[in-house]
Amino acid sequence: MPFTGLVLDSLAVDVSHALTTPGDVFNLDTNARIALVTHAQAEAERQSQSVLPLTEVTYLPPVPRPGKIIAVGLNYRDHAAEQGKTPPTEPVIFAKYASAITAHNAPIVLPPNSREVDYEAELAVVIGKTARCVPREAAYDYVGGYTILNDVSARDMQRQDKQFTRAKSCDTFAPIGPWLVTPDDIPNPHALDIRLTRNGEVMQASNTREMIFDIPYLIWFLSQSMTLEPGDVISTGTPGGVGVFRQPPVFLQPGDEVAITIEHIGTLRNHVVASAAA
Amino acid sequence: MPFTGLVLDSLAVDVSHALTTPGDVFNLDTNARIALVTHAQAEAERQSQSVLPLTEVTYLPPVPRPGKIIAVGLNYRDHAAEQGKTPPTEPVIFAKYASAITAHNAPIVLPPNSREVDYEAELAVVIGKTARCVPREAAYDYVGGYTILNDVSARDMQRQDKQFTRAKSCDTFAPIGPWLVTPDDIPNPHALDIRLTRNGEVMQASNTREMIFDIPYLIWFLSQSMTLEPGDVISTGTPGGVGVFRQPPVFLQPGDEVAITIEHIGTLRNHVVASAAA
Repeated sequence: MPFTGLVLDSLAVDVSHALTTPGDVFNLDTNARIALVTHAQAEAERQSQSVLPLTEVTYLPPVPRPGKIIAVGLNYRDHAAEQGKTPPTEPVIFAKYASAITAHNAPIVLPPNSREVDYEAELAVVIGKTARCVPREAAYDYVGGYTILNDVSARDMQRQDKQFTRAKSCDTFAPIGPWLVTPDDIPNPHALDIRLTRNGEVMQASNTREMIFDIPYLIWFLSQSMTLEPGDVISTGTPGGVGVFRQPPVFLQPGDEVAITIEHIGTLRNHVVASAAA
Repeated sequence: MPFTGLVLDSLAVDVSHALTTPGDVFNLDTNARIALVTHAQAEAERQSQSVLPLTEVTYLPPVPRPGKIIAVGLNYRDHAAEQGKTPPTEPVIFAKYASAITAHNAPIVLPPNSREVDYEAELAVVIGKTARCVPREAAYDYVGGYTILNDVSARDMQRQDKQFTRAKSCDTFAPIGPWLVTPDDIPNPHALDIRLTRNGEVMQASNTREMIFDIPYLIWFLSQSMTLEPGDVISTGTPGGVGVFRQPPVFLQPGDEVAITIEHIGTLRNHVVASAAA
């Protein structure tokens, strides 16, 4: 059975009993890293043991099935520059389907119908309460927490489709985690180092201050048109260094390990495997 | 309390007791129109009365919160032609967020940040069981039912964004219903007249045989990349006659009534209101 664990150093403390609805996770009155995990041992035994070493748990996505994953394209100055594009005048919004979500330590599966699968390190904002026509000054009140999202993308599909959704929504193309960090643990979400490594080599290294449209702007902009609901994820865009714009291009291969580290949050790590169908 | 009603002529028969999970709706072994409705009378009184006139119920969306709404662009020959575009060689896929869903008889709310809101009549396919890498020959096994979707679109946003999701996902931009029709009631989903009227005037009139990519192709194509889950909606594209390509263009105005009729399914009717914020 999955349980909600408060992460303290190297331990997960079961706090499921303190939560009566999924939204309660946003009301835990503490600076916290909140993981959703399972453990191999029998449920009865586990319930008698409310503290488990993190090395023994299996991570689940901290937001298992968001109603919306709202992704923002071209939102870092260095990523726009590497494509030779001028920064957009308004946010470029596209969807990833929630069925693409996978967890920390889980595999990214290369689909049989793409040969150009790429990574994108992103800071993900999780909405904590219903937001509609929110002014920028009030936007942070609607943030339930922060986590990391890898906006995995099939570049060949993306090029063919023009619309991004299919290329960004293959199964396992939205690794998210390892946990949710409450806002009081992140004093300034626009001063966080963000880094992605592939097999230990740094591919993306930037800081969230490089974002073109900041989090209050995005929440204002989106909530003009659509109601943001608790658990919705806004993935705030990726910095420069993605594989497709490298010379020569770099695409993910079976056996690769991709790790995204964001300051004050942690590291989201995934390995790449070939399609079972291939 | 919402209940699931089997629609027989002008009556809704409460069949909630026969359903233990939401997915059960796809296992009702009958030619049926299945609505999700509420009724104003007190719950205790209603439960004693299992048959209600349709005129007395309030419709809810027959699929309240699909995991995915997968929309297909440019999928009718006449709609591609009216834009002067050659038909695409592969389906053009984009997302509408489920938070945009609204019911039969409910208002379409014009958002304050668009002046060009348009209608699009579409046949919607509701997935009945989990589908992954489904061959075209087996695709219909995964269809749980059919309904009607109005792919309401803010053309000014769509033009600005290029990516379609924001323009197609404003609150109330996905009217769906009035009910789900089981596949055995639709012998050939590619021989259905489809028609949209605005204030009684016919704006779109075509037949689902005009689709470029048929339902088995779409299910095969999509399920190569992403798992389709029960309740997911594939909205199969709109025929010619949309407002933006008319001379002069026609956009929805407060007070308009839009009605979409698809043969063997029924009529989805919505009225247009100005934004409460406007």
